[in-house]
Amino acid sequence: MSKRIVIALGGNALGSTLPEQAEAVKITAKAIVDLIEDGSQVVVAHGNGPQVGIINNAMAALQREDPNQGFTPLSVCGAMSQAYIGYDLQNALREELLDRGICNMPVCTVITQVEVDPDDPAFENPSKPIGRFMSEEEAMDYAAKTGYLVREDAGRGWRRYVASPKPKHIIEAGAIRHLTEDGHLVICCGGGGIPVQRTVRNHLKGAAAVIDKDFASELLAEQLDADMLIILTAVEKVAINFRRENEAWLSSLTPQEARRHMADGQFAPGSMLPKVEAAVKFAESKPGREALITLLEKARDGIAGKTGTVVRQSVGATNRRAVAAEA
Amino acid sequence: MSKRIVIALGGNALGSTLPEQAEAVKITAKAIVDLIEDGSQVVVAHGNGPQVGIINNAMAALQREDPNQGFTPLSVCGAMSQAYIGYDLQNALREELLDRGICNMPVCTVITQVEVDPDDPAFENPSKPIGRFMSEEEAMDYAAKTGYLVREDAGRGWRRYVASPKPKHIIEAGAIRHLTEDGHLVICCGGGGIPVQRTVRNHLKGAAAVIDKDFASELLAEQLDADMLIILTAVEKVAINFRRENEAWLSSLTPQEARRHMADGQFAPGSMLPKVEAAVKFAESKPGREALITLLEKARDGIAGKTGTVVRQSVGATNRRAVAAEA
Repeated sequence: MSKRIVIALGGNALGSTLPEQAEAVKITAKAIVDLIEDGSQVVVAHGNGPQVGIINNAMAALQREDPNQGFTPLSVCGAMSQAYIGYDLQNALREELLDRGICNMPVCTVITQVEVDPDDPAFENPSKPIGRFMSEEEAMDYAAKTGYLVREDAGRGWRRYVASPKPKHIIEAGAIRHLTEDGHLVICCGGGGIPVQRTVRNHLKGAAAVIDKDFASELLAEQLDADMLIILTAVEKVAINFRRENEAWLSSLTPQEARRHMADGQFAPGSMLPKVEAAVKFAESKPGREALITLLEKARDGIAGKTGTVVRQSVGATNRRAVAAEA
Repeated sequence: MSKRIVIALGGNALGSTLPEQAEAVKITAKAIVDLIEDGSQVVVAHGNGPQVGIINNAMAALQREDPNQGFTPLSVCGAMSQAYIGYDLQNALREELLDRGICNMPVCTVITQVEVDPDDPAFENPSKPIGRFMSEEEAMDYAAKTGYLVREDAGRGWRRYVASPKPKHIIEAGAIRHLTEDGHLVICCGGGGIPVQRTVRNHLKGAAAVIDKDFASELLAEQLDADMLIILTAVEKVAINFRRENEAWLSSLTPQEARRHMADGQFAPGSMLPKVEAAVKFAESKPGREALITLLEKARDGIAGKTGTVVRQSVGATNRRAVAAEA
């Protein structure tokens, strides 16, 4: 049986501009097709930070030129970013597969929505800055016109802030799973998915929010019953005492060890912390599941156990769970 | 066996702005779910004229504000328009299905690319105006900076013009077919698909072009081996001598009759003509296939043979073909 892997691509896998993206996806495609050649069944998720920012700025620029246009909700910008990235990424993957003679694996991009809880406490404290910097006056005017929350961003100017709620359910997981099991290579969950909330009856309403792509990828991996979650980042391994004298790079972590390090404040919020949290959540979601945090170009070696940081339950813990489940 | 239908939504099914779209897709969803309730297997394709225009204008507005942004190719804008529309449309369909108690039909949007021939004669005579109107001076400056073709548009100002080549192959047809056969309701081929060309080896390159959504839907229907192609438009039936004294509304047409009317110049280019051409192509592609041209709200009655214009081969022609095929 081949291993099913959800791979979460970070910013460096995609670049920040369209020309950067065109180059970055070629390198990304090589690393992903390496895993496919090794026999893994891969599903690709990815971030969208710079891209959704560009699209959001573009829609706002049009609105300034032509006030008849109205504002474009962030959820719609997020949807657009999935196609903006997916189009380039799927073609790079398609080309790399065909260049290596893998002709039976079509690639496609599925627009993905992720349900969030309207009562998520994150909505009470919007923490993610998006869009361009504004002067205070401009920000106040923008807030009055749109009802959006604006806030000063670390002395660099004013920006819009949105919440970052936890993902609860991947709406399109069925389509993604079905295509994957039929041998398609699926790109999905772009930017952590389009955040939507269940409102009255069966209505889904876009939320002014950004879902962390590592948490969304983790949930996707659970819903697809994946064996492994790979979170790609800018370092080869997770470190404790990062950039200090006693810095130590970790090859493996149990959820218990990871939690101890988190309590010690070892991982930077908004950077390594959500990755470790997502990895722990996946490792604990079912016996045998493991998460790998490493560099894009080390993913292959990481799966082979040669590098990266693997988060998995200790054999004892896994056995205890299995015994408990059988009892 | 349920009938497999590709339905091509026109502009009125989607509206021109985001608020219009939110309302229009609700009505569209009702009409489509009617067909599903009647037992048809439906695949949804759609246009993107106003939407890709807005997105193209927005990316250009951002570029004017910040020249570091670079130009966004039309193919990328087309990709974004598929998500911009698909996101709203899939949610309206999902809601309508669930509201009627149809709980086993997930809806999803697949980003769709359509291959065109770099040697298509359409590239020698770009005929589709896109984006905003410009003064002559602005148009010349824009053309010099981008290399794009600009042209005066019927006395209303200058615009960019792109080619409208014929679709040759739906790249993601396999994924669309597979999902459809598994009971998913798939939205695809938005705006006629993202036009791409095969260049060196396995590379697909976006083309500065717009594919007619009726031709793309027709090709999709062929590749999915659909039984019926429904082209929705602003009139209930196709007419000859349209708006003249001897105007006649047609309930059915054979390809031969349609061709005679086309030769007589009965159908307006860029309006009814491509719809009739696409209908004829589908009706002739395989015995038993038929195309229906009607209003969105008449689709159900049209399938039942009560209204609309059906294009199908005469029984004699179908039999002759079947005999020839067996011989």
